[in-house]
Amino acid sequence: MVVAHVTAHDALTESVRRLIDATIRTEVDAAAIEAAAAKIDSATAQLSEALMPGSFGVQRAPDGRSIALGNVVIGLRNPVAPPLVIHHGAGGVVHTDFVLGAAYEGPPGHVHGGVCALILDHVLGATAHRPGEPAVTGTLTLRYVRGTSLGRPLRAQARVDRIDGAKTFAVGDIADENGVTVQAEGVFIHPRQPQR
Amino acid sequence: MVVAHVTAHDALTESVRRLIDATIRTEVDAAAIEAAAAKIDSATAQLSEALMPGSFGVQRAPDGRSIALGNVVIGLRNPVAPPLVIHHGAGGVVHTDFVLGAAYEGPPGHVHGGVCALILDHVLGATAHRPGEPAVTGTLTLRYVRGTSLGRPLRAQARVDRIDGAKTFAVGDIADENGVTVQAEGVFIHPRQPQR
Repeated sequence: MVVAHVTAHDALTESVRRLIDATIRTEVDAAAIEAAAAKIDSATAQLSEALMPGSFGVQRAPDGRSIALGNVVIGLRNPVAPPLVIHHGAGGVVHTDFVLGAAYEGPPGHVHGGVCALILDHVLGATAHRPGEPAVTGTLTLRYVRGTSLGRPLRAQARVDRIDGAKTFAVGDIADENGVTVQAEGVFIHPRQPQR
Repeated sequence: MVVAHVTAHDALTESVRRLIDATIRTEVDAAAIEAAAAKIDSATAQLSEALMPGSFGVQRAPDGRSIALGNVVIGLRNPVAPPLVIHHGAGGVVHTDFVLGAAYEGPPGHVHGGVCALILDHVLGATAHRPGEPAVTGTLTLRYVRGTSLGRPLRAQARVDRIDGAKTFAVGDIADENGVTVQAEGVFIHPRQPQR
């Protein structure tokens, strides 16, 4: 039952992602827009019959793992999240492959530079992640090499440059098939001092 | 008729924003989730009967202004956008007031650090904006002072520090009622050289 429920919720979120794209790109007339809005309001009312207060936060899965289903970058229940799937390799190396659509636009046909910053903040921060002990961003510096296109396969990757006490220094980038579009370096901090 | 159409589309986008929040926070059972998803899919199909290719880009309004309704930060037709309303003051000073909900979560109860970066990229870049001649980000550096809470009034502001040819150096921050939470500085570039 739990698995089926998660699946239904994941499917709902995917449906909302498709709706977001159609909302931006639709050229139907006002009557059709009003009819669609009425259906959406009906769905929202149904979902709102039981709402958790505030935000999703981090909750415990049945198997004990902590899950952040509402996270704006990776959250499977957050329609704003692409969502990214972060792969952790050996030695603090992480990467994620994704394509961004119309919802993430800045310059025409291109990913908003700030969305690149959002993704790089998350991916660089993931190098410092330890289960149950997330790191927060101290500083983040981005260098934009060229535009990042919507609708094309992209990869974000990051690695640990060095660790100094509670601070993890990470570097990474976003690249398309022609190479790097945005470079980043950041310092990520574990709020609790280790070894004390 | 044009005004009425815009109004219907703006209302649709607001409806989708409410749906995004309910999708994250709902605790209804799987049957209710599936029923809501069916309504959403029906609305998406209706909106998809006429779709522009790709993304919204920048289009001309009837009065000749260029408008970016699909922009992920300010786009009135982009449900992912809060949307921010940017106020331009004298001397390249800009500010915007907003509240961010569950859709923008990173650490539990807090705005994702990367969302702060997204907003600051846009707001600092707005200091360099000239009609029809947008600036792109060269570099952006963020310093996180403390967490930024969801659900509370926030202000992002920025100003021009100096201009050097095609480069605008801007500084700014996000603040809540207790002061600054994130500081930023950035270099924004006009792709075309001025005065040549």
